[in-house]
Amino acid sequence: MKYRLEEILKKVHSGKLSPQEALQYLKDYPYQNLDFAKIDHHRELRRGYPEIIYGQGKTEQQIIKISQEILNKRCNLLITKLESSIYEKMKQKFPDLEYNDSCKAAYIKQQKPLEGKGKIAVITAGTSDIPVAEEAALTSQMLGNETEKIYDVGVAGLHRLMGEHEKIKQARVIIVVAGMEGALPSVVAGITDIPVIAVPTSVGYGANFNGLAPLLTMLNSCPGGVGVVNIDNGFGGAFLASLINHL
Amino acid sequence: MKYRLEEILKKVHSGKLSPQEALQYLKDYPYQNLDFAKIDHHRELRRGYPEIIYGQGKTEQQIIKISQEILNKRCNLLITKLESSIYEKMKQKFPDLEYNDSCKAAYIKQQKPLEGKGKIAVITAGTSDIPVAEEAALTSQMLGNETEKIYDVGVAGLHRLMGEHEKIKQARVIIVVAGMEGALPSVVAGITDIPVIAVPTSVGYGANFNGLAPLLTMLNSCPGGVGVVNIDNGFGGAFLASLINHL
Amino acid sequence: MKYRLEEILKKVHSGKLSPQEALQYLKDYPYQNLDFAKIDHHRELRRGYPEIIYGQGKTEQQIIKISQEILNKRCNLLITKLESSIYEKMKQKFPDLEYNDSCKAAYIKQQKPLEGKGKIAVITAGTSDIPVAEEAALTSQMLGNETEKIYDVGVAGLHRLMGEHEKIKQARVIIVVAGMEGALPSVVAGITDIPVIAVPTSVGYGANFNGLAPLLTMLNSCPGGVGVVNIDNGFGGAFLASLINHL
Amino acid sequence: MKYRLEEILKKVHSGKLSPQEALQYLKDYPYQNLDFAKIDHHRELRRGYPEIIYGQGKTEQQIIKISQEILNKRCNLLITKLESSIYEKMKQKFPDLEYNDSCKAAYIKQQKPLEGKGKIAVITAGTSDIPVAEEAALTSQMLGNETEKIYDVGVAGLHRLMGEHEKIKQARVIIVVAGMEGALPSVVAGITDIPVIAVPTSVGYGANFNGLAPLLTMLNSCPGGVGVVNIDNGFGGAFLASLINHL
Amino acid sequence: MKYRLEEILKKVHSGKLSPQEALQYLKDYPYQNLDFAKIDHHRELRRGYPEIIYGQGKTEQQIIKISQEILNKRCNLLITKLESSIYEKMKQKFPDLEYNDSCKAAYIKQQKPLEGKGKIAVITAGTSDIPVAEEAALTSQMLGNETEKIYDVGVAGLHRLMGEHEKIKQARVIIVVAGMEGALPSVVAGITDIPVIAVPTSVGYGANFNGLAPLLTMLNSCPGGVGVVNIDNGFGGAFLASLINHL
Amino acid sequence: MKYRLEEILKKVHSGKLSPQEALQYLKDYPYQNLDFAKIDHHRELRRGYPEIIYGQGKTEQQIIKISQEILNKRCNLLITKLESSIYEKMKQKFPDLEYNDSCKAAYIKQQKPLEGKGKIAVITAGTSDIPVAEEAALTSQMLGNETEKIYDVGVAGLHRLMGEHEKIKQARVIIVVAGMEGALPSVVAGITDIPVIAVPTSVGYGANFNGLAPLLTMLNSCPGGVGVVNIDNGFGGAFLASLINHL
Amino acid sequence: MKYRLEEILKKVHSGKLSPQEALQYLKDYPYQNLDFAKIDHHRELRRGYPEIIYGQGKTEQQIIKISQEILNKRCNLLITKLESSIYEKMKQKFPDLEYNDSCKAAYIKQQKPLEGKGKIAVITAGTSDIPVAEEAALTSQMLGNETEKIYDVGVAGLHRLMGEHEKIKQARVIIVVAGMEGALPSVVAGITDIPVIAVPTSVGYGANFNGLAPLLTMLNSCPGGVGVVNIDNGFGGAFLASLINHL
Amino acid sequence: MKYRLEEILKKVHSGKLSPQEALQYLKDYPYQNLDFAKIDHHRELRRGYPEIIYGQGKTEQQIIKISQEILNKRCNLLITKLESSIYEKMKQKFPDLEYNDSCKAAYIKQQKPLEGKGKIAVITAGTSDIPVAEEAALTSQMLGNETEKIYDVGVAGLHRLMGEHEKIKQARVIIVVAGMEGALPSVVAGITDIPVIAVPTSVGYGANFNGLAPLLTMLNSCPGGVGVVNIDNGFGGAFLASLINHL
Repeated sequence: MKYRLEEILKKVHSGKLSPQEALQYLKDYPYQNLDFAKIDHHRELRRGYPEIIYGQGKTEQQIIKISQEILNKRCNLLITKLESSIYEKMKQKFPDLEYNDSCKAAYIKQQKPLEGKGKIAVITAGTSDIPVAEEAALTSQMLGNETEKIYDVGVAGLHRLMGEHEKIKQARVIIVVAGMEGALPSVVAGITDIPVIAVPTSVGYGANFNGLAPLLTMLNSCPGGVGVVNIDNGFGGAFLASLINHL
Repeated sequence: MKYRLEEILKKVHSGKLSPQEALQYLKDYPYQNLDFAKIDHHRELRRGYPEIIYGQGKTEQQIIKISQEILNKRCNLLITKLESSIYEKMKQKFPDLEYNDSCKAAYIKQQKPLEGKGKIAVITAGTSDIPVAEEAALTSQMLGNETEKIYDVGVAGLHRLMGEHEKIKQARVIIVVAGMEGALPSVVAGITDIPVIAVPTSVGYGANFNGLAPLLTMLNSCPGGVGVVNIDNGFGGAFLASLINHL
Repeated sequence: MKYRLEEILKKVHSGKLSPQEALQYLKDYPYQNLDFAKIDHHRELRRGYPEIIYGQGKTEQQIIKISQEILNKRCNLLITKLESSIYEKMKQKFPDLEYNDSCKAAYIKQQKPLEGKGKIAVITAGTSDIPVAEEAALTSQMLGNETEKIYDVGVAGLHRLMGEHEKIKQARVIIVVAGMEGALPSVVAGITDIPVIAVPTSVGYGANFNGLAPLLTMLNSCPGGVGVVNIDNGFGGAFLASLINHL
Repeated sequence: MKYRLEEILKKVHSGKLSPQEALQYLKDYPYQNLDFAKIDHHRELRRGYPEIIYGQGKTEQQIIKISQEILNKRCNLLITKLESSIYEKMKQKFPDLEYNDSCKAAYIKQQKPLEGKGKIAVITAGTSDIPVAEEAALTSQMLGNETEKIYDVGVAGLHRLMGEHEKIKQARVIIVVAGMEGALPSVVAGITDIPVIAVPTSVGYGANFNGLAPLLTMLNSCPGGVGVVNIDNGFGGAFLASLINHL
Repeated sequence: MKYRLEEILKKVHSGKLSPQEALQYLKDYPYQNLDFAKIDHHRELRRGYPEIIYGQGKTEQQIIKISQEILNKRCNLLITKLESSIYEKMKQKFPDLEYNDSCKAAYIKQQKPLEGKGKIAVITAGTSDIPVAEEAALTSQMLGNETEKIYDVGVAGLHRLMGEHEKIKQARVIIVVAGMEGALPSVVAGITDIPVIAVPTSVGYGANFNGLAPLLTMLNSCPGGVGVVNIDNGFGGAFLASLINHL
Repeated sequence: MKYRLEEILKKVHSGKLSPQEALQYLKDYPYQNLDFAKIDHHRELRRGYPEIIYGQGKTEQQIIKISQEILNKRCNLLITKLESSIYEKMKQKFPDLEYNDSCKAAYIKQQKPLEGKGKIAVITAGTSDIPVAEEAALTSQMLGNETEKIYDVGVAGLHRLMGEHEKIKQARVIIVVAGMEGALPSVVAGITDIPVIAVPTSVGYGANFNGLAPLLTMLNSCPGGVGVVNIDNGFGGAFLASLINHL
Repeated sequence: MKYRLEEILKKVHSGKLSPQEALQYLKDYPYQNLDFAKIDHHRELRRGYPEIIYGQGKTEQQIIKISQEILNKRCNLLITKLESSIYEKMKQKFPDLEYNDSCKAAYIKQQKPLEGKGKIAVITAGTSDIPVAEEAALTSQMLGNETEKIYDVGVAGLHRLMGEHEKIKQARVIIVVAGMEGALPSVVAGITDIPVIAVPTSVGYGANFNGLAPLLTMLNSCPGGVGVVNIDNGFGGAFLASLINHL
Repeated sequence: MKYRLEEILKKVHSGKLSPQEALQYLKDYPYQNLDFAKIDHHRELRRGYPEIIYGQGKTEQQIIKISQEILNKRCNLLITKLESSIYEKMKQKFPDLEYNDSCKAAYIKQQKPLEGKGKIAVITAGTSDIPVAEEAALTSQMLGNETEKIYDVGVAGLHRLMGEHEKIKQARVIIVVAGMEGALPSVVAGITDIPVIAVPTSVGYGANFNGLAPLLTMLNSCPGGVGVVNIDNGFGGAFLASLINHL
């Protein structure tokens, strides 16, 4: 078993954990039924990471209950798209809970994740794309990747991108976050041979159509080597990048 | 006549109701004109269920007036998409009125509906889809169907679905509620021979486009046996499922 | 096991089939690998019907190979959206193969399917919708349902619909096929309490947008009880109707 | 010149108005320049009605200034889509100003408009469509048409429509206001030979897509005789109906 | 009864037609069932015109059969969107059948239709819009309206429109046919007080999106008095115009 | 008067042309009515260029008739989107007619157009965009502009663009033609201070959606200074560029 | 070097500035790294204007920091789409900061920009389009262009446009701002030979679809000479117009 | 330098190639200008692979010319989306040219590409998706990756996918090709921790909308780890997969 499960078994083997204690952690594998949610503890085993909570559309009570169970399993906790008002209330119950204001994500790190092999670069075209990039960068770090942020290097001033070229070339995977016309991933892919994960954002004037414009741009990228994820989905971009970086 | 109308006539026949009293109930068939609304009391006769109120876009006064008339006819009352603030005010006038916070539906059960033949399963892909599923489950129950809720068994953790497979197979009709990519109805239809009613939800990141993505997914379902209703329309899904379950 | 599989086992039980012969039929369950296709013979067991071939996008060679294997298993064969030129060539190899010119479907009936409980009505709004309706009607019959065709009763002349009202009310499930504005399923659902499966067609002037207009109409049906399938998908409509009619 | 202009000239002719006074009214024909707006007083002459104010997107100051000028010309005033908060403030300045809460329109009638030849019927499919219908009815009346309101007769209960059939047939033009699937105009057009002006509304579940669904339905109407105007544009529907009714 | 039915009854009254002969015409009212089509002879009675055949999507055999029945009733025949190859074959059977190459419509006039009160003007923005305009003009004439064609007066050269202004003002209803940006109906509506029926066409470069662009333009027309019909639907525009012109 | 009209008057003034001859040219100003077309000879006067024929959707006869009249006026002739089969026939009648195979445009130059002030650069992202670029380049030349073609310098190989940077900077207006993701205009605008006219093309894989993707990209261009014209509209791009270049 | 950079060098040459002082200004060319933003001071050199801040999606802190740096360089400051609440706070720090309420833009003019050659006319179709037009006009002025505002001259009253025709013809570039059907740019382009920059707005009833309708109208403009920018992007329209006006 | 360039230098170093011969290969780096195309030989150096020709929209002459130059450089040749008629003609000139009928790609392998580290699995949902998958598989092989094809394992028969689970788990990158509802990538991502590249296809009934439906499904994938490329873009999927497999 990967990650934490492996570690539990090692501890049992070395006598640091009794079989009974180990059982305690393992007993409700593969999933735990809370009625409103079936927490997929098995996911860690199967996919190499614990379940991450998508905060939107869930009630405060649901989020707290799920968080509690994840923490009980001594997993790391990551909640994305969490309203700050809910965070404030959770903070009282979970004093270790930290919050990234920009991307509205809360998290607790209880253990060291398996390390990725190289560096993940998170690049934005503009300053307004930063909230989505922060979600990507935070997720990337939580999943064990060295993460380099390079913000505001869009095509309106190509020399800014060129000025950061050296840094970019050192990454093993590049996440490019861009709204408006979303041309940056094409340009980045054109000048490197590193996989590019493109994340369109809903930043821009009317015909951006809430991210449709950069989404289409990225899907039509003329240079190959660009994989696209959902609009404003920094988490998804980082998750894919992390899978690649752990190969 | 089905349901309540039949019952009235039986009571007249058995002498429990005088023809004059019966007439009182029947006189404004087939519909009752409130100017702003024409309450279709005839619907019960024609379609087997009383009129159900779609709360959105109606004023408080309109909803109260229509509710009063439905209750006067001794029908069950169901109001969907009702703002909680309007519910609070109605509660004072109709103390029996109950409210489901999750799906924002209010209801009063005054009589037992005709029972469906089997069980209706209401399944969600995620926790965030629950409000729509609750509307489906409540409607299903109000229309006389035994209803089983199975929540949070989406394709991200297929083993959760498999863990509930036995329960699902016992249903006569399955309602599958899913947002994001909406793949669950296809998967469910692929493993059973039970009619699947698919309800797309507007839950998800940007390219969900307010439910367009799962809507298209469900319409394109490769396994046959999937009928689709409107986005976030838990009521509609349950209504169709109930018709089938009463066959 | 349902249908044919059940029948095989009964024959073994009654001595009409030797276990060796039975094995011959059963050996490549659950599926048969042709490299370009994995024929799902197990589908009959799981979903109550043999695999049906979607002809579009498959080469002549692929269709012939799959057909051969299905026929070898003594299943009924149904191929939808099959170019007549391919049919002509197949006819030489499979002399029993019949063809419905209107909906471009080919079929061979080798055994009697399990009978549905009631009648399925297939209704069209106009004459131009007939090809899609024919696909639905043929599929319905192949799947063992008594099938009644009622064509050209759209809302432009409601009295035509009313003239067929008696026939319609005798159905257990109604398939309504309509292009242009696609209003017919709403009207039919409004006057019955029978489940309506709505099939939008791409028939109409420009703003029909290849079926998008009637598709949206049907999804938004004000009367409940309407389940929608894909544009021009007569097969899908009939398949769902048949599942319901076999309940 | 039609309408009021004609009347002024007649008064001059009959000596009821001095040429100097007449000049006062006429001097800034054809339009009056307020910098932020060019009030088209000439419109009355050219198109048979005074300018009507579309309230949305205009500031309070702009609306008041334009209203003042229109009233100074002794024209009738009609302001559509006006926030009630702005109305409250205007009421203090223009005590005669009335307000229709349902459709958020304010108006002052200072003179009798030229009468239409027949009656305009304003029909809605549901109760939630009433605000748009009220805008149509008010506009229709302001433009001099006898106006009959028939609300909540959608296709979910066709007998309600039939119950009002006699009233409908007496109209010279019919305005049909409908959201959800928007099937009512087709049905109405199918049973009469009266021009139908169809107004789609943004009322409905998700796949209504803010009125796109009924809009497409109406444009694709199988029965001829249906002209469509913009989503939620009750004013536009009534304006066209009034032009026809004045022929 | 209107039109032809009225005339039959008058002939019976005056002895020109025996009741038996009259019965022959009337016997299959309200509609005639050909299985693939239900010809709505009652339509003439109800809506003031005989059924018109939409040629697209119908087989040659179906069109011939329906045409035969309409001609038997001594009605006028109009078939729109008819492939010239089908026309050629029909011509042999119906030697009187004429064909408009531009709009691909075939027709036979057997009797004089009820005359409209005024003139209908059919205007196009460009030369490429003529096929749709011809369908409108032909339909208009078949339905009994004096029809004036004014082609190629789009906004690229407004003075051309102005040069025809006098002619346009004499119409009772105006049909404006326009592709590309579809601005002409707005401009025409802005300079007259005559009802404008706008017909968008699919003529134009890529972002015309097969008529979507002019369709939206027309629906959003700032000047009121514009009713829109389907893309390329010259027939529909003329039908509505004719209804208005017969008021 | 600009251009040719001016020249005629000068010739009259200098005695090179008799007033009668001049009249012959001028008599059907402002436009010439061919029924199916109103040739806008006045356009040259008003907009500085003769009418240009959009070939699509016009019949052979119409194109020939309009061409004849334009040539009679001694104007230059340009016909875009002309099928080669029609060109072949026209060539027999107009032996001087030339044809650009790539963009399907035919033309005759009878006189020298007014010269633009600088150079217009026509740039493409890829080789497949050349047909649209050729339409732009030909139009640009016909309208009197020195025109530089720089093809296949898309973002997949930015160094190719950089290699042509010097040439590009010498242009007074730049036309950028690009399909797929359409990022090139943004990049070009980011490195110059020259107005960029962006022409999206329908070249690319599925999610290009016939040019929608690059169209949106260009409209959302982050660097300012980009004006967009219709998909595949090389003519339109060149026309705007020429107007600017003649300032 | 253009503009300010040139001026610095001249001052050094003439002794008005010491090389040390000059260096102070020049040292962080080409861009200045604030982590969350890379301010492109080089843009002035390359594109002839300083960086302009797009306020939406940036935090108060980010905007203040960037503004400070731009002001330090003694450049003019322009912030578009800035919430008034942020302006209020900034005003305390930057007392010279002015604010245009209508278009929500803040600005400080510290030096005279390079003058454009002619006049830019900013035209609106309606009063509700003024906020976008104000953004265009303010930007135009900040970039050194004489700017003429002509508001509310849409196609509903063409004579208003004609009344301003003389003024319009004096412009070197015309910016046309229009919502609803967006027909005005076509009409303006049809009557002049001046480049038209079209800016669609999101003003209008439902089928305006947040500016999609006028956007498509403008892209499909039948008269050539129209370049389109993003919906509600007054800044972008003015920026392109200014580039042209500086040619 | 990577790949071939490196090899040339090594040969020079070892004396196998004279500097003059080496120069011959290197002289037109970084790109070769054919006017209609600028062949990016530098791409191999920069991105690790030679230029690949997208056949669609290029003329026969253009393709032959570019192919010749690539072959002269002793690179491998790959032409995608090439009409078989063009292939037939090229075959005469390039006898080594091979052709994959299913995906319409031609290729010549002149040297061994750098090997990828693991295996790439190419999976399809159905048989009709095979042409796109073949393009992916061929590209994958041409770029040096061991490639495993697993076809027809869509969600209609999940057990078929499960039957191939072992094979799938051995891949380093998975390409999933799916039309219709496109649910397969979500399901595959849910059961593995391998990066999934999703390729939507345009296979399916009407509401597939030419691949839009599976495209949206894949972008909204609930399980993380899915990167999406363009519709029917097998090449793009393989190119990204290969970059990852070479890490």
